[in-house]
Amino acid sequence: MGLTGIRIAIDAMGGDHAPGEIVTGALRASEELDVKVLLVGDPQKIAAALPPKTNLERVEIVSASEAIAMDEEPLNAVRRKPKASINVAMDLVKQQQADAVFSAGHSGAAMASALLRLGRLPGIDRPAIATVFPTVKPGKPVIVLDVGANVDCRPKFLEQFAVMGSTYSQYVLGVSKPQVGLLNIGEEDTKGNEVALRAHQLLRENSQINFIGNAEGRDVLSGNFDVIVCDGFVGNVLLKFAEAVGEVILQILREELPQGLQGKIGTAILKPNLKRVKQRMDHAEHGGALLLGVAGVCFIGHGSSQAASIFNAIRTAKEAVDNQVLQRLKSQYKILQQETS
Amino acid sequence: MGLTGIRIAIDAMGGDHAPGEIVTGALRASEELDVKVLLVGDPQKIAAALPPKTNLERVEIVSASEAIAMDEEPLNAVRRKPKASINVAMDLVKQQQADAVFSAGHSGAAMASALLRLGRLPGIDRPAIATVFPTVKPGKPVIVLDVGANVDCRPKFLEQFAVMGSTYSQYVLGVSKPQVGLLNIGEEDTKGNEVALRAHQLLRENSQINFIGNAEGRDVLSGNFDVIVCDGFVGNVLLKFAEAVGEVILQILREELPQGLQGKIGTAILKPNLKRVKQRMDHAEHGGALLLGVAGVCFIGHGSSQAASIFNAIRTAKEAVDNQVLQRLKSQYKILQQETS
Repeated sequence: MGLTGIRIAIDAMGGDHAPGEIVTGALRASEELDVKVLLVGDPQKIAAALPPKTNLERVEIVSASEAIAMDEEPLNAVRRKPKASINVAMDLVKQQQADAVFSAGHSGAAMASALLRLGRLPGIDRPAIATVFPTVKPGKPVIVLDVGANVDCRPKFLEQFAVMGSTYSQYVLGVSKPQVGLLNIGEEDTKGNEVALRAHQLLRENSQINFIGNAEGRDVLSGNFDVIVCDGFVGNVLLKFAEAVGEVILQILREELPQGLQGKIGTAILKPNLKRVKQRMDHAEHGGALLLGVAGVCFIGHGSSQAASIFNAIRTAKEAVDNQVLQRLKSQYKILQQETS
Repeated sequence: MGLTGIRIAIDAMGGDHAPGEIVTGALRASEELDVKVLLVGDPQKIAAALPPKTNLERVEIVSASEAIAMDEEPLNAVRRKPKASINVAMDLVKQQQADAVFSAGHSGAAMASALLRLGRLPGIDRPAIATVFPTVKPGKPVIVLDVGANVDCRPKFLEQFAVMGSTYSQYVLGVSKPQVGLLNIGEEDTKGNEVALRAHQLLRENSQINFIGNAEGRDVLSGNFDVIVCDGFVGNVLLKFAEAVGEVILQILREELPQGLQGKIGTAILKPNLKRVKQRMDHAEHGGALLLGVAGVCFIGHGSSQAASIFNAIRTAKEAVDNQVLQRLKSQYKILQQETS
C-alpha cells in the first residue's frame, strides 16, 4: 500500500543524540519502510554515523553547513542561519524534493522555520503542535492539540485546532467520525475560563466536526475522545507532566517490586509482563508530534529521541503522506473559511 | 503535642458516600486523634450511620435541615439554603465553636459558603484551592495551587498564592525555606503566556518567598519544588489528569501482570510489594485540599472520598490548626499588603 518513493527530509543535526541516533533510526526506516530518507546536516558527521556496509540505495545525504542549538532564540536563529539543517530540510519540502520533514531538534526553531519557509495553510491563523497520547483503551489513542505552539489562544484558534485534529484523526488514524472534546475544568457547558466558554460555543456550532462536549483532565486518557483541543500552555504542561509521570511510576515500580527475596523472585518471573506494561506507557512508541497548519507535513520529535522514536516518527510521517493529510486539511480549511467569513 | 480539644466541623451530608463513609472516617479520627468531631447534617441519618456502641465522648451531632446536591449551582444554592449542612458547618467556625471545617460535598458550594460566611483574609483578592501531590522523593510532597477556584487569574493572584502556599509548606509541612515555582512551559524567564510572564516578575521581586523560577509539567513530581503556583484552570486539568493517570496505570498493571501462568504466580508473590506501589500512588493518603485565603481553616475532600480519606483530611486539618496556620497566614498578608500598597 501507499505511494511509492515517499521522501522524508530528516534534520540529522537536531536532538540530544544527533546525529548518531537520528541516523540509526532513519536508516532502519529506509530499510523497513517504503521510504527514502534525506539526511540533512554536516556530511562528514552523518557519514561517520553510518555503519560501514550501509545500503545507501534509499539514503541521501544533503549538506547543511549550520545547525541550531537548543538554547538559541528560535526566530532569530532561523533567520540568521539560512543554511541551518532545519532550514535546508524545510526547503526540500518547499521545493517538492521531499514529502515531509522530521526534526528532533529545537522545536521552536522547527516551527519558526516551517512558518517562514512553508507558510501557513489558508484559513489557519496559528499552526498547532498535535501529539498522540495512548489511552486506557488499547488501539484507541487520542490526539491532543495544541501542546506548546500557542500560549495565548483566541477561541477561533481552538476551533481551527479542532478541525485540523479531526481531519488528522479521520484520515491518518482511521477514525470514522472522531469525537472532539474541549479541555476544560468541568463537563457542564457553563464551566471554564473566558476563552473556553467562547470556544465551546464555536465548537458546538461547527458542522465540520463531531463535538461531544468538554473533556476534563481525567478524560484525556479515558479513550472517550479522539481529539482534545486546548491552548498551548495547558497542553504543554499536560504533555510534560504525562511524560514525567510515566517515568516516575516506572521508577516506583523499579524501587518497590524487587524489595526482599520474594520481591526479587516475583520480579524476575514477571519480567515479560512488566515489559508489556512499560510498552503501554512508553511515549516513544508514538514517535513525534505533528505541526498542523503549515503548508507541509512536519513532525517534531523529542530532544531526547533515540533511534526507536525516530523510526516511529518516520513511520507516522509516511502514513500522513500516504493518506494525503495535507490535501485533506487544505480542503477542510476551505470549508472553514467559507463558514467563518 | 498540639492544642487540646481541637474541634472539626464535618459536613456529614456532603460526598458520594455520605453520610456512611464520612461518619466512619470522622469517628475513627475522634478515637485516634486528639480531636472532637462535630457531625453536621440530618441527625437521624447521622445516628443511623453510627455503630451501636459508639463512644460519643468526642462526637457531637449538629442538626442541619438541608443539604446541597452535587448538581446545584453553588452560589445560588448556598444563598437559598442557609440551613444547608455546609453553611451550618461554616457558621460553627465563624462562631468559634469549631476550629476547622471539612466537606467532601460540592466543592464550589464549600467555597461559596466559606467566602460568604467567613470572608477573605485581608490582603487576599481570591482564595485558592491548594492540594498536596506526592513526588518521586518519598516524604517530600509538593503543594500545588490553585487547582480550581479561579479559572482566570491576574498575576498578583498568583503572587498571593505563592505567599500562602509557602506559609502552609513552612508551618504545616515543616519545610524550612520552601522552594517556590511558577508552573510554566519552559525554564527560561522569557517563557510563558502573558499572565505567567508578569507573574514571574512579581514572584522574582517578592522578598517573602524563596522563588526559584519556572516549573514545567515534568517538574511537578520531581521533588525539586515545595510549592508550585498556577491558575485554577491549568491546576484543575493537572489535578484531574494526575488522579486519573494513577488509576489508568494501576489498571494496566492489573491487566498485564497476571497474564499467563507465570504472570499469575509472579503477581501472587509480589502482592505485598504491589500494595506498596499502590500506596505511593494513592491520593487518598493525602486526604483533602485546603481552601487558602478565607478567614478559617477549610478542607475540601473528593466527592468520592471514603473513610480513609476523611480520616486523613481530618488529621491534616488538625495539623493546620495545631500549627496555627491561619494566624501565620494573617501575619504574612499584613506584610504582603504593606509591600504592594
